[in-house]
Amino acid sequence: MSEYIWGRNPVVEALQSARKVKRILLAEGQRQAPALSTIIQSAQRKHIPVETVSRSRLDQLSRGAVHQGCLAVVEQRRYASTDDILARAAQKNEAPFLLILDAIQDVNNLGSLLRTAEAAGVHGVVLPLHRAAEVNATVVKTSAGATEHVLIAQETNLTRTIDYLKQQQIWVVGLAGEAETLYTQANLTGPLALVVGNEGKGISRLVREHCDLLIRLPMHGYVNSLNAAVAGSIAVYEALRQRSPSRR
Amino acid sequence: MSEYIWGRNPVVEALQSARKVKRILLAEGQRQAPALSTIIQSAQRKHIPVETVSRSRLDQLSRGAVHQGCLAVVEQRRYASTDDILARAAQKNEAPFLLILDAIQDVNNLGSLLRTAEAAGVHGVVLPLHRAAEVNATVVKTSAGATEHVLIAQETNLTRTIDYLKQQQIWVVGLAGEAETLYTQANLTGPLALVVGNEGKGISRLVREHCDLLIRLPMHGYVNSLNAAVAGSIAVYEALRQRSPSRR
Repeated sequence: MSEYIWGRNPVVEALQSARKVKRILLAEGQRQAPALSTIIQSAQRKHIPVETVSRSRLDQLSRGAVHQGCLAVVEQRRYASTDDILARAAQKNEAPFLLILDAIQDVNNLGSLLRTAEAAGVHGVVLPLHRAAEVNATVVKTSAGATEHVLIAQETNLTRTIDYLKQQQIWVVGLAGEAETLYTQANLTGPLALVVGNEGKGISRLVREHCDLLIRLPMHGYVNSLNAAVAGSIAVYEALRQRSPSRR
Repeated sequence: MSEYIWGRNPVVEALQSARKVKRILLAEGQRQAPALSTIIQSAQRKHIPVETVSRSRLDQLSRGAVHQGCLAVVEQRRYASTDDILARAAQKNEAPFLLILDAIQDVNNLGSLLRTAEAAGVHGVVLPLHRAAEVNATVVKTSAGATEHVLIAQETNLTRTIDYLKQQQIWVVGLAGEAETLYTQANLTGPLALVVGNEGKGISRLVREHCDLLIRLPMHGYVNSLNAAVAGSIAVYEALRQRSPSRR
């Protein structure tokens, strides 16, 4: 089975990632651009065929999304396991830092959160297998290709995963508007799994009850919540700040 | 001149804001919902007419966007001035905290940033008059109605505005990937204008040269930038953390 990744930056990222790229398709009649040269040279080095096709063919494969004249045919995504994520932390000799996304619905939010997680050096992201946005080509693009580098696990039962993480001495902290503890007052320096909930409803009741601690962002205005990707990203970067040796 | 605001939460926000609501249009045949009751009661208290119209009429007015069966006809937005923003800070007896958005292109990013700014208690947001996304109905909706509460100024020349702010002893700090100073190492506690740049190009050269300081977010992965709304929001919340009396 193959999947498609489109857009110049996502294709560049895919070529640099562990995922096998089978073919690159470029729209005919494009002007020279640095990103395109990078793609062609990288493909040649790796003996990946580059084909020129009509723009309408790319429109068809990307189902009308903005492909910037560039599409990669890649092998199907292989999801990691939660143990793979813990193994990566151990390999880097770092305290585990996981992000758990409880039923994010919007592909743009999912892409943004994966991008933030990868940039922040999170060891991996856990998604539920059902009732959530999947890592499709739009997510790959919104993530700026981060999906090709960060470990992503899909779990059928998030509460079971949370219990497993707690057995491994990992502190499970959920982001919830009604929490008493401010996110800056929680200690986020040790082994940590940060749980970010759904756009409308937040973290589901069952998952919430399994968290060790709930934290909230301060709200000083009339609106009482932030965009889910923004809120999750702020919490990820606060954890990163606390975990950095030079923090002030 | 009238404008339209659609979506249940944005209409609730509009009814609570200073902007004059002329009429509420509701789609016929809707089930009872708490948000709808809130809207109807609030409109009645303020003697604002509520009309039931066909769903297709709402589709037409919202140009096909998701209106959730609910639309407000409001007076045209009145933009604030930068002096209005400074006056609000003085009135609250707080050190000024402004957000300057240098040419954000994407309406979803603009909406998210306005939402974050409002929630963080920023005194106002400055937008350039040209070459940037405008505060249209989609922005109102993405902002969860924050646009109806936060002061928004439109300035023809951002560098002139920045120079004016500097004359008022306001520290102008730009977010830029190539900056030397980490955002957590900068002192963001005093009078502050935070500048967030465009999605692709960041802050424009001229604006950048007029900043007192450039700061960057740490990047520990393969991707070397975050979504513009996410990056700007993380910086806003770091400033808020530093400005809060109980910070750790």
